[in-house]
Amino acid sequence: DEMSLKRSIRARVPPMLTDLYQFTMAYAYWNSGRHNEPAVFELFFRENPFGGGFSLFSGVHDCLLFLRNFRFTEEDVEYLRSVLPPTTNPAFFQFLRELDCSGVTLRAVPEATVVFARVPLMEVDGPLAVVQLLETSLLCLVNYASLVCSNAARFRLAAGPDRKLLELGLRRAQGPDGGLTASRYTHIGGFDMTSNVQAGFLFGIPVAGTMAHSYVTSFSSLEEVWPQTLLPADGEKDPIDLISLTKGLLGRLCELLGAEPAKIHEGELAAFLSYAIAYPGNFLPVIDSYSVSCSGLLNFCAVAMALIELGHQPRGVRLDSGDLCRQSVEVRRVFKHCAKFSVPVFESLIIVGTNNISEQSMMELSKKENEINVVGVGTHLVTCTRQPSLGCVYKLVEVRGSPRMKFSEDPEKSTVPGKKAVYRLLDSEGHPLMDLLCLSEEPPPLAGQTLRCYPLGQEAHLAVTPTQVTCLRQEVFAKGQVRNWSWWMWELDSQLSRSRPGM
Amino acid sequence: DEMSLKRSIRARVPPMLTDLYQFTMAYAYWNSGRHNEPAVFELFFRENPFGGGFSLFSGVHDCLLFLRNFRFTEEDVEYLRSVLPPTTNPAFFQFLRELDCSGVTLRAVPEATVVFARVPLMEVDGPLAVVQLLETSLLCLVNYASLVCSNAARFRLAAGPDRKLLELGLRRAQGPDGGLTASRYTHIGGFDMTSNVQAGFLFGIPVAGTMAHSYVTSFSSLEEVWPQTLLPADGEKDPIDLISLTKGLLGRLCELLGAEPAKIHEGELAAFLSYAIAYPGNFLPVIDSYSVSCSGLLNFCAVAMALIELGHQPRGVRLDSGDLCRQSVEVRRVFKHCAKFSVPVFESLIIVGTNNISEQSMMELSKKENEINVVGVGTHLVTCTRQPSLGCVYKLVEVRGSPRMKFSEDPEKSTVPGKKAVYRLLDSEGHPLMDLLCLSEEPPPLAGQTLRCYPLGQEAHLAVTPTQVTCLRQEVFAKGQVRNWSWWMWELDSQLSRSRPGM
Repeated sequence: DEMSLKRSIRARVPPMLTDLYQFTMAYAYWNSGRHNEPAVFELFFRENPFGGGFSLFSGVHDCLLFLRNFRFTEEDVEYLRSVLPPTTNPAFFQFLRELDCSGVTLRAVPEATVVFARVPLMEVDGPLAVVQLLETSLLCLVNYASLVCSNAARFRLAAGPDRKLLELGLRRAQGPDGGLTASRYTHIGGFDMTSNVQAGFLFGIPVAGTMAHSYVTSFSSLEEVWPQTLLPADGEKDPIDLISLTKGLLGRLCELLGAEPAKIHEGELAAFLSYAIAYPGNFLPVIDSYSVSCSGLLNFCAVAMALIELGHQPRGVRLDSGDLCRQSVEVRRVFKHCAKFSVPVFESLIIVGTNNISEQSMMELSKKENEINVVGVGTHLVTCTRQPSLGCVYKLVEVRGSPRMKFSEDPEKSTVPGKKAVYRLLDSEGHPLMDLLCLSEEPPPLAGQTLRCYPLGQEAHLAVTPTQVTCLRQEVFAKGQVRNWSWWMWELDSQLSRSRPGM
Repeated sequence: DEMSLKRSIRARVPPMLTDLYQFTMAYAYWNSGRHNEPAVFELFFRENPFGGGFSLFSGVHDCLLFLRNFRFTEEDVEYLRSVLPPTTNPAFFQFLRELDCSGVTLRAVPEATVVFARVPLMEVDGPLAVVQLLETSLLCLVNYASLVCSNAARFRLAAGPDRKLLELGLRRAQGPDGGLTASRYTHIGGFDMTSNVQAGFLFGIPVAGTMAHSYVTSFSSLEEVWPQTLLPADGEKDPIDLISLTKGLLGRLCELLGAEPAKIHEGELAAFLSYAIAYPGNFLPVIDSYSVSCSGLLNFCAVAMALIELGHQPRGVRLDSGDLCRQSVEVRRVFKHCAKFSVPVFESLIIVGTNNISEQSMMELSKKENEINVVGVGTHLVTCTRQPSLGCVYKLVEVRGSPRMKFSEDPEKSTVPGKKAVYRLLDSEGHPLMDLLCLSEEPPPLAGQTLRCYPLGQEAHLAVTPTQVTCLRQEVFAKGQVRNWSWWMWELDSQLSRSRPGM
């Protein structure tokens, strides 16, 4: 919806967020009277990220907001006057004051489409000086969004469809907005939840989280637990002393499991009790502050049993260090033990694992025996350790209807000239066969007709008969307005919905 | 100055930019009446980044703005009410409405100080619930700032003191603010200029840049050059036909250098002429759009000679692909040739190199023969490819005057308990000997007195006699106010000054 889009910090991306050379070039175009010549730029990346076979193209939405709001303020213009060479004709600054994107047309693939290297994903068509000025900002808005969305999709593929994924990267991202972008686009890429409250607020992503180690270590004795009582869930009026109840259960649990009561950390028990009293329906402590098997797990089970006796439903535990798989198996074994002897609710407790998870360790985790229901991922997800940049580029392909090409000392940096149409050819099962680039003036390929095509970078040609032909890109911005808003937003809308904290 | 600080987007970092568990913990503290207990958190990193021996700690400035502006809006509180469990006591939301950082004291090392692993760089002292809420935001504000500042310093060390360094990373950063943070902190870390106009506007960093390949490829013939004339620099009234003048010079140049006129790209010449006419004092084209040696270099030299004849001073060239060192040597050879035969101004032209430069390739470049005066760095600088996160952590060390410690299944994750004082001990030449951690209640070390200390993680002790002892951290925020503003800003002020475009 428009309201929540406007709240987005992206509505504030200023047109000054670009490279200086865009302005010096814009001036040179203006000075030679070429600034309004119709020009076409293409945006694409040269290699699929992470050594993989695809990317999820994202950030279109932010680009539309940017285009719609593209106006220079008086302060912007005064700054530009101070940094451009003093010989700059003053009339140029008047030109900038009046500039907007009403002459720009953007064709783009929908948000979060599966795309491939070297296919033009955006086509920006408009007055030469304006579409030149847009370059850096558009690249900035799609490069990281697409990269982190694709990274999230790879984590999702590695995790399988059932495990819940929680994004935790805010503290390791490139500043506040890096963190917000990460939360937003990892959700689109397949993550279920984020820890980032501002991302929940702005984008409606489900937020999750309960307790850090500092909460546990801030307690040292049961005397710090206050109040010490909890009301039963069924509405009975008499509060129960949760400390006494839990102490009794803990004693029996130690006997049952052959554990040493002396090794149990009292501060940890106090922290768990105090949290359970504050949030009896949201009890999911981190259990590795001292020792999972000697203290944290036993304290959890005792408090959980007490909550269950009062009719509350504990949620589970979080493991944050060591061998998560091995520990989760041990934790689940103890849960099953507890369930068998007394409380069946223990069967449904969840185990959350968070400890520097990479795509590699997610794949290993999926192969090993483990009982982890929710995986939290931070650093490797948001920084995209394996390849921290996507490398989208923005290349001029046509001016005044005539094609443009860049050659290069590095042959792979040469560009394919001309304004293009991009078709996705599908087979009889609806699977993509290939993306076909044609010149925009060529007739479109037809379903059921065999066509000859030339895979990029190869000599040989190929004969293909598509069952279905779709246009990969759609016109999403024209005449200063976002077009087909509902069309390109449906995919996001269906994925984003506000909800209470998970885990 | 305060005004430009307020314009910073960082003034807008909302207190909601944190992890959800900070709020669930704050509620549990509040619910048990512990929210105002005095608590101390420490911020540090566990390993120096990039396998190196140091880091430049940065982001303090942004943390101060964040603390000063820390207030929840009514909209924030309503959102929190919607995501915290429905059993949350409504009085807690009133508590949040009134919350600010007036009870928080921050001790920190000054912006961009050289620091080392495991030394507490910030100490955050205040009411337990408040200092807990600050965790993620503070980490987010210092982690990337410190990382990219340190990365910039490593590029500076690899480049040597004389080469100019230009930051170009906006299009590859984590969104708009990632790009701004990168520009700002790479400047502090040793870069001379940025291409990022908004960073110049907000932070006064010198901005630089002239022309991209798209400008060159947008021209196809000399007919597109308009106006075709240029006024001499000495104020003579008669404009000179720059095209004819340059064509004549280009012919002579081809003869002189034995070049083939047929290989010279007319569109490139048109682009250079048109830019030179727009900015005769800022002529620094990119010369590899077609071929450096067969076209770009010759076109540059001819236009530069024409400018010089009219009394203008060309600036130089940019190389953006291929072997930059080899090409720069060839370019310099041709410049010297031109200088010897006709125009001594050619001696002072600069060569800018930009092509996916990493710290490694910067070191190689410094070892190889080359003539590059300015190096532009983007992707590897801002994404910190080699290690894209710093990993600062924020750990509770004291509550109500009593020390706190976290143990862990990973021993290196255990913390050192207690509120500390941190001293930097210097030798007789003013060089740092070590950073000494003491409990804050211990007497400070004295200059000239030998003390026994225990290097972290080692069994043996060490005897050290410092010539000078300094406090590494200073109180920079207390009672809701930034303290010693002038003291901790001097370093930034001395580095940041607005100027006209470089290169």
